[in-house]
Amino acid sequence: MSILVVGSVAFDTIATPSGTVKDILGGAATYFSLAASYFTDVRVVAVVGEDFLPEHEAVLKKRGVDTRGIGRSAGKTFRWGGQYLDNLNEAKTDFTELNVFEKFQPRIPREYLDTPFLFLANIHPSLQTAVRLEMDGVRLTGGDTMNFWIKGTPKELAETLKLVNVLLINDTETRMLAGEKNLLRAANKVLALGPKALVVKHGEYGATIFFREDAFGAGSHPFRAPALPIDEVKDPTGAGDSFAGGFMGYIASQGEVSREVLKRALFYGGVMGSFAVERFGTERLQNLTRDEIEGRFQVFRQLTHLD
Amino acid sequence: MSILVVGSVAFDTIATPSGTVKDILGGAATYFSLAASYFTDVRVVAVVGEDFLPEHEAVLKKRGVDTRGIGRSAGKTFRWGGQYLDNLNEAKTDFTELNVFEKFQPRIPREYLDTPFLFLANIHPSLQTAVRLEMDGVRLTGGDTMNFWIKGTPKELAETLKLVNVLLINDTETRMLAGEKNLLRAANKVLALGPKALVVKHGEYGATIFFREDAFGAGSHPFRAPALPIDEVKDPTGAGDSFAGGFMGYIASQGEVSREVLKRALFYGGVMGSFAVERFGTERLQNLTRDEIEGRFQVFRQLTHLD
Repeated sequence: MSILVVGSVAFDTIATPSGTVKDILGGAATYFSLAASYFTDVRVVAVVGEDFLPEHEAVLKKRGVDTRGIGRSAGKTFRWGGQYLDNLNEAKTDFTELNVFEKFQPRIPREYLDTPFLFLANIHPSLQTAVRLEMDGVRLTGGDTMNFWIKGTPKELAETLKLVNVLLINDTETRMLAGEKNLLRAANKVLALGPKALVVKHGEYGATIFFREDAFGAGSHPFRAPALPIDEVKDPTGAGDSFAGGFMGYIASQGEVSREVLKRALFYGGVMGSFAVERFGTERLQNLTRDEIEGRFQVFRQLTHLD
Repeated sequence: MSILVVGSVAFDTIATPSGTVKDILGGAATYFSLAASYFTDVRVVAVVGEDFLPEHEAVLKKRGVDTRGIGRSAGKTFRWGGQYLDNLNEAKTDFTELNVFEKFQPRIPREYLDTPFLFLANIHPSLQTAVRLEMDGVRLTGGDTMNFWIKGTPKELAETLKLVNVLLINDTETRMLAGEKNLLRAANKVLALGPKALVVKHGEYGATIFFREDAFGAGSHPFRAPALPIDEVKDPTGAGDSFAGGFMGYIASQGEVSREVLKRALFYGGVMGSFAVERFGTERLQNLTRDEIEGRFQVFRQLTHLD
């Protein structure tokens, strides 16, 4: 079944120990769409400026992504610059130029309204809420957020969290959102805010999914998927969004949302994140094959499974 | 088959958010022995002072640990004080009184010399080397070390590493020992120093074992075991030594040292570490049952295994 992602399309300028790139295609919705496109049909709602050229759109179209929801505004596309020179695990932002993204008002094309799966990438929680309310037939909503909204717009975020079924955030965000250092207790506090499941991304250590009791089946045991030890991380940008794309894309491809599907989805999230960081920007995500993805899924399995 | 551990016995004074304890039985050899005692026969070589009473020795003896290798010296037992009030993942040392441990010269009782498995807990690398050379019939040697020796006695440590088959250290120590930030590259550099396998302990994220190519079987794929998300870590002291005890104890119990055994051992290491932190000091490790251990092993499996 198809999935709709709402989020940013951007041009990134990135410096890592492996090199520097300027104004390459990026943004959460871009990484998410490309990663999810290997599993299911993807529709995207975003806004770009006059500098977003057919060659940029072609990156998405080649992967079969439905780009009719990408709106054009006068002005320049969102630009971000950052570096990972000291620490590959955390970006140091050099500049953020919101440009057309500053006034982003997601407009859902009529033909997208029946999309059964939805991912609300990291944008203002009020916009996330508005999109979700417009998509009233959606079967499962995934969402992302960040420290900026957790601190800056807690009331708006609280409303969003009531509508998000699966929240995907990192350790620091989980602890900040819960006001609790212990990860298990923090996860349970976040689940009490609305989501039925919480995916906590641990960077190079993988990710854990926590379930609200009896959500998606019986029990409340968490589940953990690994990340792949990689000898050279060329560019960590977009790893989290690629993870989300693999995770949500796999779920959408299965239709039914059981615990077993969510567990496998966690593995596929790790798989897509591991591909993303092997090259700068979206390069690696543009030219994968399903065989490569299945091959790496098996590597992840060997990495953690006994017998 | 039996295992010999050489390391510290200590009295610890510990403050954590859950409370404070004074002069409780601790030390790497103590935690290791108790954890390993659920899997196999354990022999211990250590030194204690006049304040080490029969009631302390009884803690080990009740678990069947052979304590004939614990030497008595005039003076006080090694004492350590630390706290985890700000950060449960890292101890802040309040004081270290080496006492009789300062002049520790491990003396291996004659009847221990044929012990097939050996664990060199975190002591001066020259002492580790001396013990290993004395135990010339040993089948597998595990070892630990720390930043203090990596920085302070690199030449002595290099000699030790040539004799250690499986090294168990944490992420920071691995990167420091290799002089390399990327974990996979750092692990490969450490393996080039001597060990056939390297276990990197990630604290709350579990542990990864890296293999030298074709050591213990074919291939060079790493393997990762989880840690259990725990809602209250009462006292992290001894978690790493308990991990080592579960890991090495399980290997010794199996006799043969294959990759499959090492993978399962990694799970049992995590299991014993997870028990250790549930109570202050060695309390939880004193009264476990094999059923509880197998039960938690299954929880670890559920936490990571698909299907």
